[in-house]
Amino acid sequence: MTDRTRFDAGDLRAFVARALEALDVSADDAALVGEVLVASDTRGIESHGCARLEGFYVDRIRDGRIDPKATAKTVRESPTTLAVDACNGLGHPVSVRTMRRTIEKARDAGVAVATVRNSNHYGIAGYYAMLALEGDCIGVSSTNAGRIAVPTGGRDLLLGTNPFAFAIPANDGDSFVLDMATTTVALGKLEIAKRLGKQLLPGWAVDAMGAMTTDPDTGLAGAVLPLGGFGTEGGGHKGFGLGLLAQLLCATLGGGTLVPDMPSRAHMLNGGITSHFFMAIRIDAFRDVADFKAAVSTELAAFRDSAPAPGFDRVLVAGDPERTKTETQLRDGVALDPVVVASLARVAEKTGVTPVAARA
Amino acid sequence: MTDRTRFDAGDLRAFVARALEALDVSADDAALVGEVLVASDTRGIESHGCARLEGFYVDRIRDGRIDPKATAKTVRESPTTLAVDACNGLGHPVSVRTMRRTIEKARDAGVAVATVRNSNHYGIAGYYAMLALEGDCIGVSSTNAGRIAVPTGGRDLLLGTNPFAFAIPANDGDSFVLDMATTTVALGKLEIAKRLGKQLLPGWAVDAMGAMTTDPDTGLAGAVLPLGGFGTEGGGHKGFGLGLLAQLLCATLGGGTLVPDMPSRAHMLNGGITSHFFMAIRIDAFRDVADFKAAVSTELAAFRDSAPAPGFDRVLVAGDPERTKTETQLRDGVALDPVVVASLARVAEKTGVTPVAARA
Repeated sequence: MTDRTRFDAGDLRAFVARALEALDVSADDAALVGEVLVASDTRGIESHGCARLEGFYVDRIRDGRIDPKATAKTVRESPTTLAVDACNGLGHPVSVRTMRRTIEKARDAGVAVATVRNSNHYGIAGYYAMLALEGDCIGVSSTNAGRIAVPTGGRDLLLGTNPFAFAIPANDGDSFVLDMATTTVALGKLEIAKRLGKQLLPGWAVDAMGAMTTDPDTGLAGAVLPLGGFGTEGGGHKGFGLGLLAQLLCATLGGGTLVPDMPSRAHMLNGGITSHFFMAIRIDAFRDVADFKAAVSTELAAFRDSAPAPGFDRVLVAGDPERTKTETQLRDGVALDPVVVASLARVAEKTGVTPVAARA
Repeated sequence: MTDRTRFDAGDLRAFVARALEALDVSADDAALVGEVLVASDTRGIESHGCARLEGFYVDRIRDGRIDPKATAKTVRESPTTLAVDACNGLGHPVSVRTMRRTIEKARDAGVAVATVRNSNHYGIAGYYAMLALEGDCIGVSSTNAGRIAVPTGGRDLLLGTNPFAFAIPANDGDSFVLDMATTTVALGKLEIAKRLGKQLLPGWAVDAMGAMTTDPDTGLAGAVLPLGGFGTEGGGHKGFGLGLLAQLLCATLGGGTLVPDMPSRAHMLNGGITSHFFMAIRIDAFRDVADFKAAVSTELAAFRDSAPAPGFDRVLVAGDPERTKTETQLRDGVALDPVVVASLARVAEKTGVTPVAARA
């Protein structure tokens, strides 16, 4: 970890923005992408942060798979619902704007749900759910993603990581933020095991025929498994159900691309075939906000203050590790891996903009 | 399985109703309990059906823990939201009525969310979510439950099975129905393993100190684990997050009983401390219902028609096993275990009503 370079979050955001602006992305859109990517790094979810800028966004704009100038269209709208077509634009700006509109609707009407179709990779699901916190709402976000996982009992790649995120406010800026893939692990975990020469845990992956494997290469040539692992005995059918639910709420409800029309491998993901789902619930439609936040804090404390199991220091509630990480990163600078730093240098070259400078 | 007795579903429903009516439950309420319990048996979820009538409902009414004459009160209401106080009545009637009102609101307004507090065990979560199907809505239901599970990294019993159910309609009465506990397994699985002299699978349970165990007795004296199993490596923190989410959406949003105020063991569950959550989304707020249902059918077919893994006959989608079971049970009669048949005979004695007759 000593070979990492630290950057100011603001410098990283500005770099992402100017690189995308150089590719004809509007200043507003580019700023939103920078905001979401750097928030991901700040929260410690490096797989979805600046590490993705080159391959997922810059290269895809440059080779025509994402339209940098796309303007999203509202397809259907009511005081509580919103169906948006992203028209193959970047996933982050349309998602931030759609979640903001969803929160506004929930603040007016009590509850609101939105879908976005024909979009692209939107980064961390949790970012959008967390936008609801300031509006004293409960936020929900989900997306489908490129096919990397098999269904329970199957061997065809039919599911993405298909995450769900839920954000619920507590007292004094505290919150519950669950941001989880519906697969047991992401592909990155298999790549790390391969690099370290380690075996996979049972329940992470299958080979190309759908049989369980603990070998990283075999798993990478095969597929990952839904949360709950192989078969039904550990609850794999539940993770499969949640992954398919994400696909149904995002793509099927929103009128986006269905599984049979998605490329069979995640890395072949074409532009504009990702769909998202957003929801907000206004808390004081049910009870006073202060009472609610106090009750959430009581509830979270019951877990955080509970006795740890052998081998654990304490019980962490969803969002706790990311909150601690954010404090460190904002204080000390956002630490990026050499691979990511090199990628950002290539982005500067490809787009002709000033590279981002490391923290002094 | 040959020592099971088969009953007509209608006879079972009528029996449940007359037993509860004898305990001062209104005819309408009693009929709704019969409807939900027998639907559970018909779907093959025997743990939540007539097997629970004696211990969970009849005995609790008789010893004063459930109020048979309770009338639910609406605490807050808007065109899209509904907060209900069950006033310690039976869980099923208030839940059926609240979900019906939620669906009506969603049909008028696009989306609706409801909470119910101070309620009791409501049976299968899936029943309520499925009520949305006929209204061309997506249905969601959740409940908290007596404490039987530890959080990830902890050893205190702080979570119930805390299920979530989602129901989404497809063509020709087909549907996606995910009804899942957020624990890896229910306590019943440990009891079955004990009866059969089998070991538990790793990831199902921990001992009283929170260390993993595969011994049924040790697990029954300890706790079950969240979906994803022990620790974080198989995603146990995700199941924990979902279980806590259920508690936050049901009890905390609805103003019900928080974890610290629930008895520390599920079997000590007092009356009126269970909370529920319901939601409905009107499909044609997003796209035409016929298009949506066709797309869901396409999506489900992509999974059902996909290649099975070695050792599996086919890929089953959430709700498929229960749909098949329902067809068999309605044709051949609802098969009940001798233990359940004996319990129903005791219910007839305790309430002084005519016992239910087996199918001729």
